[in-house]
Amino acid sequence: MEYTAALIVIGNEILSGRTQDKNLAFLGQQLEQIGIQLRECRVIPDVEATIINTVKELKDTFTYVFTTGGIGPTHDDITAAAIARCFGTPLSRNQEAVEMMKQYYHGKEISEARLKMADIPDNAILIANPVSGAPGFQLENVFVLPGVPAIMQAMFAGIVDRLTGGDPVLTVNIITNLSESHFAKQLTVIQEKYSDISIGSYPFYRNGRPGVNLVLRSTDTEKLDVVKHKVGELINELGGKIME
Amino acid sequence: MEYTAALIVIGNEILSGRTQDKNLAFLGQQLEQIGIQLRECRVIPDVEATIINTVKELKDTFTYVFTTGGIGPTHDDITAAAIARCFGTPLSRNQEAVEMMKQYYHGKEISEARLKMADIPDNAILIANPVSGAPGFQLENVFVLPGVPAIMQAMFAGIVDRLTGGDPVLTVNIITNLSESHFAKQLTVIQEKYSDISIGSYPFYRNGRPGVNLVLRSTDTEKLDVVKHKVGELINELGGKIME
Repeated sequence: MEYTAALIVIGNEILSGRTQDKNLAFLGQQLEQIGIQLRECRVIPDVEATIINTVKELKDTFTYVFTTGGIGPTHDDITAAAIARCFGTPLSRNQEAVEMMKQYYHGKEISEARLKMADIPDNAILIANPVSGAPGFQLENVFVLPGVPAIMQAMFAGIVDRLTGGDPVLTVNIITNLSESHFAKQLTVIQEKYSDISIGSYPFYRNGRPGVNLVLRSTDTEKLDVVKHKVGELINELGGKIME
Repeated sequence: MEYTAALIVIGNEILSGRTQDKNLAFLGQQLEQIGIQLRECRVIPDVEATIINTVKELKDTFTYVFTTGGIGPTHDDITAAAIARCFGTPLSRNQEAVEMMKQYYHGKEISEARLKMADIPDNAILIANPVSGAPGFQLENVFVLPGVPAIMQAMFAGIVDRLTGGDPVLTVNIITNLSESHFAKQLTVIQEKYSDISIGSYPFYRNGRPGVNLVLRSTDTEKLDVVKHKVGELINELGGKIME
């Protein structure tokens, strides 16, 4: 069984380029460690129909779906209402969420604006928010999280136990000063021979000099070692350096 | 008429969280300046069927589609072949692309691995690559660009003339130390009154302190000024600060 996931990043500010998303990289790394493959990410605007259609499509395709963004108190925070519609579930004031927020605010009165964040689709399981009080929630295989990375990351830590994954994927990075075209042909031969090891070749520029990051991925440590050795040999034969 | 765009980021390395995408933020900002709205971004793996299906869906939905990644010389660079299949067009050695590369390498012999990057779908219009030689290409409304940000950005500069946009969207940023729930209610009133101005409210943490970035967007400078003034007044009334 393969365990897969998709991330839906909700927010005009990401699409306008004003805010740099950081949740994709975080989630990709975290999920990999617990044997869940992040297979797709969609960045979409704060538009109800788009949120509904995207969640509907992805929740039937992947084991887990995560959303980030749009669960605050302002008019442009429409994720909770959209998810409720998507599941055909009413959105109502969740008393457990209100209690969580009361506790966070040490009994101080909570404004109606803030309480809007306790409006949660019925039957959802809450996700505690240790940073800023207002919870996220889970409905079936869909996990609804906030967009601010520090808060999202703290809340993700609290739901890892709810996720089932396979064997964690192990990774070997080999960075070389060769350019891709130097080793492309022989690397293809290695890839074809060890077809169950995923070999990615990612060129980069650093301080004006080109280089390539070769990423070997597999759940099988031994095979990974064999291929690491083969790729290292290839780089040496071609007169390249392996950089740390 | 609205001019819209989607970006398809192709690459396992982005989904695994190993590489931080920077092309979305760049493209969102650039397109906004020429009156094209980036409406969706999909990050997908180096899987042919996924590339084909995603391009097919998005090219019929948006005015323009951009792809980044997967056009190098190695086995995992499958974007050009996938786009050819998507359009039902043969992929063949493009002599104009070969000439571009010869010129870049000053007549030095070009290896077969490198020449693979001159395999382009028939009828595509090339996109010159001033940084590393191998061109991208355009097929109908789909623009195929490399993933390395420095190269992608240089190549984008060369295709701006091929894009038609509407009025550029103007943006006003107002950063305040208030939290969202302080002004959520009154901000909704302003948003409802000026419904053709898009008001986004984006909370953040900086040096451990919360704040909000309010982003007003419109093609209408005068209305934007009016709303900027209203929001400024609201923050003052509530005892908040406007930060630079």
